[in-house]
Amino acid sequence: MEKIILLTGFEPFNQEKINPSWEAVRALQGWREGDFVVHARQLPCVFGSSARMLHQAIEELQPSVVIGVGQAGGRVDMSVERIAINIDDAPIADNKKRQIVDQPVVNDGPAAYFATLPIKAIVHAIREAGLPSSVSHTAGTYVCNHVFYSLMHQAHEWGTTMRAGFIHIPYLPQQAAAHPGAASMKLDDMIEGLRIAVRTTLAYDVDMREAGGVTH
Amino acid sequence: MEKIILLTGFEPFNQEKINPSWEAVRALQGWREGDFVVHARQLPCVFGSSARMLHQAIEELQPSVVIGVGQAGGRVDMSVERIAINIDDAPIADNKKRQIVDQPVVNDGPAAYFATLPIKAIVHAIREAGLPSSVSHTAGTYVCNHVFYSLMHQAHEWGTTMRAGFIHIPYLPQQAAAHPGAASMKLDDMIEGLRIAVRTTLAYDVDMREAGGVTH
Amino acid sequence: MEKIILLTGFEPFNQEKINPSWEAVRALQGWREGDFVVHARQLPCVFGSSARMLHQAIEELQPSVVIGVGQAGGRVDMSVERIAINIDDAPIADNKKRQIVDQPVVNDGPAAYFATLPIKAIVHAIREAGLPSSVSHTAGTYVCNHVFYSLMHQAHEWGTTMRAGFIHIPYLPQQAAAHPGAASMKLDDMIEGLRIAVRTTLAYDVDMREAGGVTH
Amino acid sequence: MEKIILLTGFEPFNQEKINPSWEAVRALQGWREGDFVVHARQLPCVFGSSARMLHQAIEELQPSVVIGVGQAGGRVDMSVERIAINIDDAPIADNKKRQIVDQPVVNDGPAAYFATLPIKAIVHAIREAGLPSSVSHTAGTYVCNHVFYSLMHQAHEWGTTMRAGFIHIPYLPQQAAAHPGAASMKLDDMIEGLRIAVRTTLAYDVDMREAGGVTH
Repeated sequence: MEKIILLTGFEPFNQEKINPSWEAVRALQGWREGDFVVHARQLPCVFGSSARMLHQAIEELQPSVVIGVGQAGGRVDMSVERIAINIDDAPIADNKKRQIVDQPVVNDGPAAYFATLPIKAIVHAIREAGLPSSVSHTAGTYVCNHVFYSLMHQAHEWGTTMRAGFIHIPYLPQQAAAHPGAASMKLDDMIEGLRIAVRTTLAYDVDMREAGGVTH
Repeated sequence: MEKIILLTGFEPFNQEKINPSWEAVRALQGWREGDFVVHARQLPCVFGSSARMLHQAIEELQPSVVIGVGQAGGRVDMSVERIAINIDDAPIADNKKRQIVDQPVVNDGPAAYFATLPIKAIVHAIREAGLPSSVSHTAGTYVCNHVFYSLMHQAHEWGTTMRAGFIHIPYLPQQAAAHPGAASMKLDDMIEGLRIAVRTTLAYDVDMREAGGVTH
Repeated sequence: MEKIILLTGFEPFNQEKINPSWEAVRALQGWREGDFVVHARQLPCVFGSSARMLHQAIEELQPSVVIGVGQAGGRVDMSVERIAINIDDAPIADNKKRQIVDQPVVNDGPAAYFATLPIKAIVHAIREAGLPSSVSHTAGTYVCNHVFYSLMHQAHEWGTTMRAGFIHIPYLPQQAAAHPGAASMKLDDMIEGLRIAVRTTLAYDVDMREAGGVTH
Repeated sequence: MEKIILLTGFEPFNQEKINPSWEAVRALQGWREGDFVVHARQLPCVFGSSARMLHQAIEELQPSVVIGVGQAGGRVDMSVERIAINIDDAPIADNKKRQIVDQPVVNDGPAAYFATLPIKAIVHAIREAGLPSSVSHTAGTYVCNHVFYSLMHQAHEWGTTMRAGFIHIPYLPQQAAAHPGAASMKLDDMIEGLRIAVRTTLAYDVDMREAGGVTH
C-alpha cells in the first residue's frame, strides 16, 4: 500500500503577501515516487486552529511521515528543527490578531519533543545536493513551533509509528528584495530540499550520527 | 535560616585563557544580602564530570536556587536560557579531548526541562538596570546545555523546591579584542546582572508575563 | 555601431573550487540585445596582474560599459558598489601567495572613485524584478577593490565616456552548503541581476535619486 | 607650547536620549598629559551646521589632532574609520528633520579622503589594552561621514599638518538594553579607548603596517 507523506505549509503572515512554505509544499502535492505519495495542506498562521487543522489532516490521511514547513525570514538555509517546545510566546499577533504570551501549547504536556525525522541525515543529504542546510535547535515560540509541538504531541499520544518534524526555510528572493540584509533561497531549491527531506526520511530508520551541534 | 544560592561558572575552553562565567561567579562568592548567601563553584568544561561536580555541590550545599553561568562567545547580552534539552552534540572537543555526538545527557530522561527561574522577570530587571539581556531559547548542545540539563534533571528527580536555570554571558572585552566582530560586556556589568538575577529569583515565585518570544 | 559591454569575473580563490562571479559573467558572453553585445573575461585573483589583464581587455574592446563582478562570501544579495578606494590591504594571500598590506592600488592616485554606473537605479530595478539587492559602501580592500579601483582610475585617466562599476554577489548554494550560516543565491538569479544591471546602465544616463544610504 | 587635541561628539539622534560619543568625549574635556590638552565639543546631528560648528572650533582652537567620534548602534567595537566619502545619503532624517539623499558633502570635492590618524596603530593599541577594536572601511553616508569628510576636506584645504580621523563606537549598555540583539560597550572602556587613540596618534607619525583589511 502506498505510504502517505503529509507536508504542511502556512498562509502568509506579518504583512507578507506570500509564504514560501506553502509555495514549496503545494508544488509537491501529488508527488509520487517509489511507494509514497505526498499530500500538501495549508495551515492558517493562527494559534489553535492551525493545530486543529493539522490534527484533522492526520486523522484523515493517516500519514507515515509528516513534515511541517514554515517561513523563517532572515535565516539563510533550510534549517531542520531538532526540538519542539511546549510554549506559545508570540512577539507579534497571529493572523487572528491574537498575541499569546507564555502559555503552554498543550496543558500538562511535556516540556519538549525531539523531531523523529533523521535530521542529521537530511541536513547531510541536502548539502550533498549542493544546497545550504543546517540543524536548528530552536523553532521559536510562535505558530511554527506551536504546530511543530502539536504535531509531535499527537504522534506521541497516538503511539503510532508516524514520524514527524519541521523544517524552516528562508525568504524567497522576491521577499528579500523588500528586506535589505535578509538572505533568500529560490523556490525550486526549497522544493528540491523538501524532496530530499522526504526521500531521506524514508531511507533512514535511524538517523546518521554526525556533528551538527553548537556550543551555545 | 540562611538560604543558599549556588552559582556555577566554567573553566576556560576552546583556547581561551579566561572564562567570564567563572570570573563573574567567583566575584559573588560569599555575597550576603537579606536572608541569602552565595556559594560559587567552578565546573570543568568536560562532559560528565561537570555534571557530577554540580550534583555533589548541590548535595553538599542544599541550595534554594542554582544558576549555572556559561560563556557564549559572540552573543551580545546576558541571555537567560529558557530550556535545557536532552542531547549532547559537541561541535568541538571538551577539555578532556572528547567530542560527544548525538547522545542523551541522561538516558531515558525527558526531551527537555524548562528553567524554573523567573526568566522574564530577570530579563526585565536587568534591562531596567540599564544592561542588555534577553530570553534565549537554546543553550546549545555543548557542555553548558549538558550542565543545565543535568541540573534541571536533578532538581526534578529530587522533587525539591530548588529553583534552577542557566544564564549565558558574552566575551569579556579582552577576549573580544582577539575576536574581531564579536561583542563583549564588562565583568562588572556581568556581575551586576547576576546579582539582579539572584534578587529577582527570590522576589518572584511566579514569573511575570511579558512578551519575550521569537517567530523562529 | 554595436556598443560593447565588458563584464569581468574572477577565478576561484580562498579554497573555493568555483567562483560565482565567473560563472555568472561567462553565461552572458555574447549576449546581444538592442544595440549592445556583452564580452566576458575572467581575471586572476591576483594583485597587479588582474588589473593589467583588465586594462588590456579595455584597450582591445573599447567598451562603453565595464562591470566588474566578484564573490562576496557571506553577503546576502547583489550589492552594487558605490566607491573604490586606493588601498590594497589583504586579509589573506592572493592566488600568487602574496599578501599585500597597506599599499596604494595606484601610487599618487586619488583616495577613491565613485562608480559611474547608475547604482540606485540598478538596485531599484533588481528589486523590482524580485531579487535582493542593495548599495554597498565598501568593496573591501582585497583583489575585488583592487580591480574596481584600477578600472575607475583607467576610465578617469583616459577621460573617456566609458562608464564603470562593480557588483558583489553572494555564494552559490553549493558553496554555502559548505559554509553553514552563509547566505546564497542561485546562479540564474545572479545572471538575471547582471542582465538588469546592464540594461539599467544603458537606460539611465543619470542615476535616479532614492535613499540607499546607511547611518554608519 | 601645548598641543591642542580636539575631540567631537554628537548630540543624541534617532529617538535615543543619550549619545555615547558625546558622553565619552566630554569626559576627556581638559585632559592633559605630556604636552597636550584635550578640548571636547558637541556637534548637532544635522547636515551642514555640524560641519560649520566643527570648522569654527578648528579655527578657534588650531588643534594638532582632531578626532570625530560618533555612535554606530549595532557595531560591536571601537571602529577606527579609514576613509570619508563625498556623499550625503541619509536613511533617516537628521535632527532638523531633513533627509538629504545623494548630494555631495562638498561640491567639487574629491570622492574621498583617507584618515590621517595612524589607524592600524590605534586598533593595535586598543586591542593590546584588552578592548575590542577594528578598522572600518565605511563610516556610512549620514551625519558622521558628513562631519568626517568635512573635517578631512578642511585639513586638506588648509594644507596644515593637522591630523584627523573618526572613530565609531557602539551603544552604551543602557541603550542596548532597549535594542535586543545589539552589542554595547561601557562608557569607561570607550573613554579609555579614546585616550589610547590620542596617545597613539601622537606617538606614531607614520602608521604601523599590519593586516586589517577585508576581502569585501
